[in-house]
Amino acid sequence: MIAVVKQGSSEQQIESLLTWLRSRGLRAHVSVGEFQTIIGLIGDTTKVDIDLLEGLEIVESVKRISEPFKNANRKFHPEDTVVNVGGLKIGGGNFQVIAGPCSVESPEQILFVAESVKASGASLLRGGAFKPRTSPYDFQGLRAEGLEMLLEAKAKTGMPIVTEIMNAVHLPLFEEVDVIQVGARNMQNFELLKELGKLKKPILLKRGFANTLQELLMSAEYILAEDNENVILCERGIRTFETYTRNTLDLSALPVLRELSHLPVIVDPSHAIGVSRYVNPMALAAVAGGADGLIIEVHNDPPNAVCDGAQSLTPEQFADLAGKISRIREAVMSL
Amino acid sequence: MIAVVKQGSSEQQIESLLTWLRSRGLRAHVSVGEFQTIIGLIGDTTKVDIDLLEGLEIVESVKRISEPFKNANRKFHPEDTVVNVGGLKIGGGNFQVIAGPCSVESPEQILFVAESVKASGASLLRGGAFKPRTSPYDFQGLRAEGLEMLLEAKAKTGMPIVTEIMNAVHLPLFEEVDVIQVGARNMQNFELLKELGKLKKPILLKRGFANTLQELLMSAEYILAEDNENVILCERGIRTFETYTRNTLDLSALPVLRELSHLPVIVDPSHAIGVSRYVNPMALAAVAGGADGLIIEVHNDPPNAVCDGAQSLTPEQFADLAGKISRIREAVMSL
Amino acid sequence: MIAVVKQGSSEQQIESLLTWLRSRGLRAHVSVGEFQTIIGLIGDTTKVDIDLLEGLEIVESVKRISEPFKNANRKFHPEDTVVNVGGLKIGGGNFQVIAGPCSVESPEQILFVAESVKASGASLLRGGAFKPRTSPYDFQGLRAEGLEMLLEAKAKTGMPIVTEIMNAVHLPLFEEVDVIQVGARNMQNFELLKELGKLKKPILLKRGFANTLQELLMSAEYILAEDNENVILCERGIRTFETYTRNTLDLSALPVLRELSHLPVIVDPSHAIGVSRYVNPMALAAVAGGADGLIIEVHNDPPNAVCDGAQSLTPEQFADLAGKISRIREAVMSL
Amino acid sequence: MIAVVKQGSSEQQIESLLTWLRSRGLRAHVSVGEFQTIIGLIGDTTKVDIDLLEGLEIVESVKRISEPFKNANRKFHPEDTVVNVGGLKIGGGNFQVIAGPCSVESPEQILFVAESVKASGASLLRGGAFKPRTSPYDFQGLRAEGLEMLLEAKAKTGMPIVTEIMNAVHLPLFEEVDVIQVGARNMQNFELLKELGKLKKPILLKRGFANTLQELLMSAEYILAEDNENVILCERGIRTFETYTRNTLDLSALPVLRELSHLPVIVDPSHAIGVSRYVNPMALAAVAGGADGLIIEVHNDPPNAVCDGAQSLTPEQFADLAGKISRIREAVMSL
Repeated sequence: MIAVVKQGSSEQQIESLLTWLRSRGLRAHVSVGEFQTIIGLIGDTTKVDIDLLEGLEIVESVKRISEPFKNANRKFHPEDTVVNVGGLKIGGGNFQVIAGPCSVESPEQILFVAESVKASGASLLRGGAFKPRTSPYDFQGLRAEGLEMLLEAKAKTGMPIVTEIMNAVHLPLFEEVDVIQVGARNMQNFELLKELGKLKKPILLKRGFANTLQELLMSAEYILAEDNENVILCERGIRTFETYTRNTLDLSALPVLRELSHLPVIVDPSHAIGVSRYVNPMALAAVAGGADGLIIEVHNDPPNAVCDGAQSLTPEQFADLAGKISRIREAVMSL
Repeated sequence: MIAVVKQGSSEQQIESLLTWLRSRGLRAHVSVGEFQTIIGLIGDTTKVDIDLLEGLEIVESVKRISEPFKNANRKFHPEDTVVNVGGLKIGGGNFQVIAGPCSVESPEQILFVAESVKASGASLLRGGAFKPRTSPYDFQGLRAEGLEMLLEAKAKTGMPIVTEIMNAVHLPLFEEVDVIQVGARNMQNFELLKELGKLKKPILLKRGFANTLQELLMSAEYILAEDNENVILCERGIRTFETYTRNTLDLSALPVLRELSHLPVIVDPSHAIGVSRYVNPMALAAVAGGADGLIIEVHNDPPNAVCDGAQSLTPEQFADLAGKISRIREAVMSL
Repeated sequence: MIAVVKQGSSEQQIESLLTWLRSRGLRAHVSVGEFQTIIGLIGDTTKVDIDLLEGLEIVESVKRISEPFKNANRKFHPEDTVVNVGGLKIGGGNFQVIAGPCSVESPEQILFVAESVKASGASLLRGGAFKPRTSPYDFQGLRAEGLEMLLEAKAKTGMPIVTEIMNAVHLPLFEEVDVIQVGARNMQNFELLKELGKLKKPILLKRGFANTLQELLMSAEYILAEDNENVILCERGIRTFETYTRNTLDLSALPVLRELSHLPVIVDPSHAIGVSRYVNPMALAAVAGGADGLIIEVHNDPPNAVCDGAQSLTPEQFADLAGKISRIREAVMSL
Repeated sequence: MIAVVKQGSSEQQIESLLTWLRSRGLRAHVSVGEFQTIIGLIGDTTKVDIDLLEGLEIVESVKRISEPFKNANRKFHPEDTVVNVGGLKIGGGNFQVIAGPCSVESPEQILFVAESVKASGASLLRGGAFKPRTSPYDFQGLRAEGLEMLLEAKAKTGMPIVTEIMNAVHLPLFEEVDVIQVGARNMQNFELLKELGKLKKPILLKRGFANTLQELLMSAEYILAEDNENVILCERGIRTFETYTRNTLDLSALPVLRELSHLPVIVDPSHAIGVSRYVNPMALAAVAGGADGLIIEVHNDPPNAVCDGAQSLTPEQFADLAGKISRIREAVMSL
């Protein structure tokens, strides 16, 4: 971390700043230039509040040099993390397609969708039991009962399952769940993240729709810092001024996160775009852009889905897309 | 709710759409025009997924006419809600200033700040015990211990206290808290909102930094729908591309929320702007714009604050600001 | 266009609204429902100011059903427009790569880059002569002289050239230019667009970094309305809160624009991302997402480029990328 | 400007970087720390492309210490600039209200509005003759004829006039105009700004709806650098995700611009908000926040305005607002 001292600051003021910095456990290297004095800070600067330092009277500006995340940082962990989900690998060159409905609606529905998407090549099954909804009057999910149905579908198809948690008190119900999803709205629910860090189970961490990539990595850090290394990052669109799509899919998350971190990164084009007929091109773009996987909404009967029907593919549409994904993925592997 | 049918749709297709709509408990009024067929939907349309309807093959577009919130809606509750906090009123022409530090740090610190801001005219005391921090390595608050210190300050000064909750399991600790704050990052933590709806205690609901005003009202609706009517809305800045300020304070929230809802609306210029020397003009602007109150960060020693020191006023700066607030408020009352 | 009348409006008020609407040349179809009265408007509603109508006292809300653009609208022109640039086709299944430096710097430089990118498979040459720069102290381009150098490179390599115009008074200098580019900052310079509409030359219209896709099509409409049908749309990133990349590349522009319009759509990953090492994955994602072409910055010596060196590929990097583009494009064509 | 060198860079690499920097006319002060090497750059760093420097292989990061604007910078010009418009002063404690219709529609209309707003206390008259419209099918203004009508109203009322220019070739028509406005969409029309810099006439420069405050100052710098010092900055709302208002009025522009620059800053609540019934509170908030003036749309007959009727006040509503502005302004002056 570097602090630039304002021109005209007295030696005494600088000395007092240095004392203050040292009291925070940092060593300071002072470089007096012709026009400016620069203080290089050495030590654990992740603990320094950059806004506060910048607000001090004699400080012109401050720049953090090292990223504030450690466990998620590729610098300290150069190899790709490969997350193992019941034998299926994600990351480090391994690619998986997760598919399924927004909400589990009945045992028959989830089993039917599971078998359909498995036949087309999906390897994991998604399905919502606890649903975060903007309106208290919208369907809130079948909750515990929905989880049961998902587990039944897992038992019958052998597909590992991915489902969202909204509250740490529900954790006992998630024992048999293979991947626990943290939704966009809970990306900064730090109390929940800490609890998930105490598990060894893979966590699918979705980017909040208004969070920076650095914030996403800081939230992953909450889980990693508690010693759960099985984090899968997921880009699912950010909020912008554009209105033709629900959110704006930010595929630059792929190369940026790959450079900054060793964690696998998957893409959810369904939630990002919100319109089923635009899902295909965005899914293929994500594959070409280097995603480690996709998560795609598929529903047996989209017009009658209890939620997010507008963005769901039918099993037939998904089968078509899955074939295309394979071909683009092959081309990517050949590069 | 109005649905416009695509040109060229067959009568049979329209009939099938009507059957589908009726199966959702809605009555449909069909108007066949020269160039377009319009279906007006009557009944509880808050339960209809607008995206889904819009995604149907024969539907050109859909427009919701009534807002999706009811309890928060001024249409059904024309008078201003006045929230009573230990005898102090907020809303309906009553204005209060809430002040205090970002974090409770020690019994002496919180008492000192409480006495200072009380002397300058603040009527409620804020102070964080449970702190949501982007980084797991940042100070997370004194938690239960911090709450104790706040309660001590309340006992000694008589000021009602406002403090943030991050997890419903902590509720037993909040028994003596006067106003429970839901922070921006938890505005859509629906599990938490439902629990708070079961209390009668006033809830200070902060707008998420990337949430629309309608979403803010929908989150208030979660609390109101459970029968807690004591909700105070708080504008605290939204995320934009501008970088000189931490967030962009959206003061148009004041007239818009006042028109849509009967709930009181206060403004937090400190978090919105993030720079203490810009807090004054934004606080005064909020008063002139019609706020029912302000919440302002004040710290005994900002350079040594454990969090958000950059945006905190000193007690002296706050005393100066409080005087100015009074004079602008008087001018507003005289209009 | 549909207007919903507020509940409780009197017949006289409605009659007066109808008179007002008819005075604007529209026919109105009134549908009186149990709970609402709806007015369907027929005629040239592109001339009606939707904000104004919505602001009228008795109007609850208004919805435009048809898009406000006509010439750019696929509904009235179902076939893809194919723009012909000196025999090279863009759109309707034809894909081209445009490459070259941000700025033309010398005859040798532009010729060297032109020959390099041509050898790697680029078919058009880009190069800036008139440069819009945020700072008046930044290099403003070689202007007329730069255009001469570009034309020389065109003469020697046979590559058609693409270059930006900033001011209609410079048009006489652009006679031999093959494609005139309108930069993001001039997307709503309507005076300039009108002048370009009077030409027959292809126009490359870049999306403004804060403009919606509908606004992009409205700006295309300015050119098309003057009878120049040769418009190529270009997605080049939008401004968001994310800071790791210069802008956020919005690839959903590809399926959305393809659905709404018949005009070809290309992608500029270099300006969107602003970091050369992220250009490759975003270029490949654009190809898989269905782009009709790419425009990529290539410089002989990026560290010494007079502008945008940070996002420029070297000729060697471009050669590598061009090979990858071909392979992804082949995979896309095989789908 | 400070550049941080990556750990592990060789001495030879650093030497080569220094040579490169010196070739750009900069002096470099190298500070070798235990963990990092920092290069402080002295000289005219406004000419250094920060993105490029940051993109160099051995550079970890770069920080600009001094702002890239000079003439607009308060550091080099501590006193407030006071712009004189026909004897009326703006800035440095002088406050003016500019009012008038979006578009000049007829000699009678503009004269009627001028007389009305003058009677209520407005000191300058605004009115659009050349109108930038998103759609080519919308009314484009009366152009030269509209200017004539404005000048007539000026002659009859004695009010100085403010009107927008869209194209430098129209400048001869603006001879008698008192303040030339640059609209939001032309804030980065650098060719136009350069031409306006050659005049001595006051320029009202509106912030682009997606431009940062630094970019606004850089655009002012284009005018100031050509020696026209009469620039008035105008905040008029930025584009965000919120949809209840047309744009989001960013009043933090007031303290930020006042700190960074000596130029006067006024606020246009009408365009920012786009809804006439929200204009009042936002106008008052701007006054309390420290604006040097306001620009407000007033129309004799908003429902029949040819543009922006939805945001226009009637003369009666303006009279009411003007009284309130005076009272809040008095309170501000008394602080």
